[in-house]
Amino acid sequence: MPPERRSRLSPAERRAQLIAIGVGFLAEHPLEELTIDELAVRAGVSKALVFHYFESRRGVERAIVTTARDSLLLATEPRLDLPPRERISDTLLRIAGFVRDHSGTFSSLVRGVASGDPAVRAIVDESRELNAARLREAFQELGAPDTPALRVAFRAWVSFTEEALLELVVDRQVDAVPVVDFLEATLDSVVAAAGDARF
Amino acid sequence: MPPERRSRLSPAERRAQLIAIGVGFLAEHPLEELTIDELAVRAGVSKALVFHYFESRRGVERAIVTTARDSLLLATEPRLDLPPRERISDTLLRIAGFVRDHSGTFSSLVRGVASGDPAVRAIVDESRELNAARLREAFQELGAPDTPALRVAFRAWVSFTEEALLELVVDRQVDAVPVVDFLEATLDSVVAAAGDARF
Repeated sequence: MPPERRSRLSPAERRAQLIAIGVGFLAEHPLEELTIDELAVRAGVSKALVFHYFESRRGVERAIVTTARDSLLLATEPRLDLPPRERISDTLLRIAGFVRDHSGTFSSLVRGVASGDPAVRAIVDESRELNAARLREAFQELGAPDTPALRVAFRAWVSFTEEALLELVVDRQVDAVPVVDFLEATLDSVVAAAGDARF
Repeated sequence: MPPERRSRLSPAERRAQLIAIGVGFLAEHPLEELTIDELAVRAGVSKALVFHYFESRRGVERAIVTTARDSLLLATEPRLDLPPRERISDTLLRIAGFVRDHSGTFSSLVRGVASGDPAVRAIVDESRELNAARLREAFQELGAPDTPALRVAFRAWVSFTEEALLELVVDRQVDAVPVVDFLEATLDSVVAAAGDARF
């Protein structure tokens, strides 16, 4: 990119460009390998400019992880026009598709976010909470009660699903449809077990 | 501890003492808060001596996390004299007991290990693999085949269980027995779903 084009970016555009480059990096490498130097070289700007926009390496990491997480959440937003059962299948299929198409980003978010920064971990945990809340909502529409046991079951099942997607879709490139069938079967059985739980 | 007593420790004892202090720290704080300074102060030794035994902060972290992980694995080793079904229940009860009695250590291992060091994450992942292998062995004795789907199911269920133990035993102090009943019900149903999986 020639300098005269770079100089035309507004501050907001420049910041977004740096984040986009960082998200691209995350798709290929774990977060801990991203240095300010590396980001500056890739963007063709000075380190000082990167620090101007993000203040610190942690600031860069938080912005990148937030953007990567939000792109996953946005791409897999439940279609509220579908009835709850179909909505769950559809959402899971789109999550599996996202994981297939952006396997590096998904791996980095789930496996690789070991940045030494609790705030980065909290950013990823928020998406787990949101996914559990999406399930709770769909099952309430199906008539399931909102019990503490069921909340725990949904949250733990989100972790189950992350691990299964990493192994099946990222590592073994299994097709989305049988993966989603398997996940739905485990979801229903975990919900049933929560219904019988004595806590 | 008076200096004359400290000086009687052999190098192996001194190293073990530093690790024990670090594991004690991990029970109260996340790993990223442990500095060499802090460890030296707690042990009543110089920073130089800590570096002599571990070379770097990462060396300290790896030794501490390995020891904490191994204490969990040792305390929850399956009793091979029990038939497989009872062995699984007994192991889960002891895991729940360990989590209750060492909730800080368990949280730090599962939630808090964000040290920026992939080797530390790998140390924790090894215990997940071992727990999945223990399950595989017990279910093979029960006649379950060793399929790729079942391997994924066990591995993902270990993540499910970690999350459920954090929420139920650490955060909500639920009794071990109903927690284990719930976990066993989900384990059986996940195994059944893996038996029907088309991958």
